[in-house]
Amino acid sequence: MQCNKFQNWSAEFLGTFWLTLGGCGSAVLAAAFPGLGIGFLGVSLAFGLTVVTGAYAFGPISGGHFNPAVSLGLAVAGRMPFSRLGGYVVSQVAGACAAAGVLYLIASGRAGADLGGFAANGFGAHSPGQYSMVAALLCEVVMTAVFLLVILGATAKRAAGGFAGLAIGLSLTLIHLISIPVTNTSVNPARSTGVALFAPEWAVSQLWLFWAAPLLGAVLGALIYRHLLAEGPAESRVD
Amino acid sequence: MQCNKFQNWSAEFLGTFWLTLGGCGSAVLAAAFPGLGIGFLGVSLAFGLTVVTGAYAFGPISGGHFNPAVSLGLAVAGRMPFSRLGGYVVSQVAGACAAAGVLYLIASGRAGADLGGFAANGFGAHSPGQYSMVAALLCEVVMTAVFLLVILGATAKRAAGGFAGLAIGLSLTLIHLISIPVTNTSVNPARSTGVALFAPEWAVSQLWLFWAAPLLGAVLGALIYRHLLAEGPAESRVD
Amino acid sequence: MQCNKFQNWSAEFLGTFWLTLGGCGSAVLAAAFPGLGIGFLGVSLAFGLTVVTGAYAFGPISGGHFNPAVSLGLAVAGRMPFSRLGGYVVSQVAGACAAAGVLYLIASGRAGADLGGFAANGFGAHSPGQYSMVAALLCEVVMTAVFLLVILGATAKRAAGGFAGLAIGLSLTLIHLISIPVTNTSVNPARSTGVALFAPEWAVSQLWLFWAAPLLGAVLGALIYRHLLAEGPAESRVD
Amino acid sequence: MQCNKFQNWSAEFLGTFWLTLGGCGSAVLAAAFPGLGIGFLGVSLAFGLTVVTGAYAFGPISGGHFNPAVSLGLAVAGRMPFSRLGGYVVSQVAGACAAAGVLYLIASGRAGADLGGFAANGFGAHSPGQYSMVAALLCEVVMTAVFLLVILGATAKRAAGGFAGLAIGLSLTLIHLISIPVTNTSVNPARSTGVALFAPEWAVSQLWLFWAAPLLGAVLGALIYRHLLAEGPAESRVD
Repeated sequence: MQCNKFQNWSAEFLGTFWLTLGGCGSAVLAAAFPGLGIGFLGVSLAFGLTVVTGAYAFGPISGGHFNPAVSLGLAVAGRMPFSRLGGYVVSQVAGACAAAGVLYLIASGRAGADLGGFAANGFGAHSPGQYSMVAALLCEVVMTAVFLLVILGATAKRAAGGFAGLAIGLSLTLIHLISIPVTNTSVNPARSTGVALFAPEWAVSQLWLFWAAPLLGAVLGALIYRHLLAEGPAESRVD
Repeated sequence: MQCNKFQNWSAEFLGTFWLTLGGCGSAVLAAAFPGLGIGFLGVSLAFGLTVVTGAYAFGPISGGHFNPAVSLGLAVAGRMPFSRLGGYVVSQVAGACAAAGVLYLIASGRAGADLGGFAANGFGAHSPGQYSMVAALLCEVVMTAVFLLVILGATAKRAAGGFAGLAIGLSLTLIHLISIPVTNTSVNPARSTGVALFAPEWAVSQLWLFWAAPLLGAVLGALIYRHLLAEGPAESRVD
Repeated sequence: MQCNKFQNWSAEFLGTFWLTLGGCGSAVLAAAFPGLGIGFLGVSLAFGLTVVTGAYAFGPISGGHFNPAVSLGLAVAGRMPFSRLGGYVVSQVAGACAAAGVLYLIASGRAGADLGGFAANGFGAHSPGQYSMVAALLCEVVMTAVFLLVILGATAKRAAGGFAGLAIGLSLTLIHLISIPVTNTSVNPARSTGVALFAPEWAVSQLWLFWAAPLLGAVLGALIYRHLLAEGPAESRVD
Repeated sequence: MQCNKFQNWSAEFLGTFWLTLGGCGSAVLAAAFPGLGIGFLGVSLAFGLTVVTGAYAFGPISGGHFNPAVSLGLAVAGRMPFSRLGGYVVSQVAGACAAAGVLYLIASGRAGADLGGFAANGFGAHSPGQYSMVAALLCEVVMTAVFLLVILGATAKRAAGGFAGLAIGLSLTLIHLISIPVTNTSVNPARSTGVALFAPEWAVSQLWLFWAAPLLGAVLGALIYRHLLAEGPAESRVD
């Protein structure tokens, strides 16, 4: 890829902006609309479509990670040099924060607006279904690990070219279909950080889990892939 | 593309006819059907699928814009000559008006039919969730800007051929999943104009915003793309 | 295509069997399940997915019509010789009737089973939303006409290879999202005929409309395509 | 394919793990969440997406069966040597059991957790809609037979390369949209076995049907394909 660093960072900023605005926006604005709301199913679809659309639009520029856990996992799997990690993560977190700010402006633009949890991730008393910290941790680790397996498998050389964006985005939809009740679903520390800034105070105090678990899960997924499934040295594809 | 002007205009007319009939038709006829209605999620899917299907059916003929804001954004981004803009926009608005007429005939074909807002776009008292004019304006500008980023990115030369129709259509689904509660979602002045003709009077009086905001957002998206992401002079691809 | 006549007929039989069993089956068994039912949205998705899956599985053998209106439209558009029409239509109707029989056996396999309208198509008092005969006729004609436009456009030589099955199937989902409330959606005389045999008596007496309107709409769509959009004599592609 | 046996088994283990965790996890955790639950539609989508994502991620390694009935059907159709069947089935059942264990840990991680039927398959009194054993048997046989037809058709040489994963996964969504009310939908003995270990006692006592019917249906589908639709001796494609 002949894109320069600034283009990479712009693409990651814009893609994570879109992921956070689209996924969390649908949750805050539309999930519980009386009678016609989109529910957890609509929010799951929205999160997945941010990645499907972002992957085809921005993927050719930056690889389309939009998620610090994904960038770390790709580095561990040998698909991206560790030296790029810093710039990617900063761009992603900045994009998520910008999106949360725009969403806050829109969502508060109605009389008597009640933003609730502002789509923040939480566990225990702040889990949508009151799941414990241990259940939340296990769930986020496993979901992120499988997410990385799908990403690494679908972008391997032996995979069908072109379909990776669809497979990866739809796996994010699937992850949300399973786990919104447990943690409101993160698997993405940038998305969690962005909305935590505008959510009630508990969100920042629980934010550590939504960095620790996705990063741990991503490393786990990358290691499983390398040891059980990788094509061999030839696979290391640094885009 | 070797299609002549008349074929271009026909394709834009038919595609925008389908977008308006399908998207607004599902909203008017099926969204709130008692017990089994499709809700905002179904309407979002319908709008997106009009573009997915139209892109594969009519896209090879005209480029598949079906939206004056998209045509303007593509012109600003250097993908279409400005000289074609007039014919495209007239065809699109005509198609949307024809669709609204057909929908009106079908929808009024039941005893005691109440067409409600006829899927018109609105703000303030006419926003589905009573969002203010400023929130509506911000929302439509941002949504259209990202829509253009997805369109320009997914149809760039470096993108995976063939998937653009899917990515672009699904981004319209996503936009609706987020923003139906705010403005009933326009991002398309032709769609707004078509149904406003058959909707209650407030729809025409608020129509200005649904021309101004999508056009502004489209220009913004095109400029962001050109300055931050474009492949260089070689990208200007005038289909 | 080097498939023989018997393979063509088998593929059309099986594909229409699947369309009717999947689409009508989801409507009869799952649409109104208490609390967790899939509603019109789920039924719309089911109908579309029968065609998406059937198109990739059986399409390479027979072209994947699964619908007498589609076969007629393709013949009018010059894509299939009229001489094949008889065998295709007989296979399609037979497949739909077999599916309705299997569905009847499954659906009646519970204590106190009430099969309701058995997903039959109807108008007036038998329209889900009590739409008049004229509205039903208009709706079926327009929906089938656009369906043919999508089919002809997405399978033209200039279209992106491989995506036609997806575009065509999803257009059937879209058609259902709009028009289930009006007629329970036919656009397919075979599907209407199959379930009418097991539905209450009114279904057979209204069946004429669900042959007349889809066939008329298909011819209309084919003529619009030929006169406004076709690629020229070279397009006639008889598979 | 140059993957070794251990990679094949790992891929089948991981894919069936994902199918069971994703499909049954969405059912147990999210289907009936108060007010915002995803219902049978969301569960249907989840099951299908496990296969869509698994097919693109793991399919290039093992073929992506994730289901003993699919492996048997492919062997009967001449697409896989019977000698591989044992290793595949053991890997699939092990993956499903591991997933059920992880799901059990997550799902029981809330105060007063009630796991209900734990997404087990059942008939008669344990069918979601109280369908009889005969209806359940017929339904599972027919659904699995068509599933195999779609798999064999979409992966034939004449089919559009790359789309098979999408078509096959979405056919599983469709199968669930039809048949969750009848048996909670199996068509996959591994998935049934995994959750039966953690479900109420009736699940194990009814498990025989969810081995017998899918295996019978798969053989039936494979035989129909071979006799009515196959491309000839050249088709036998042992990956």
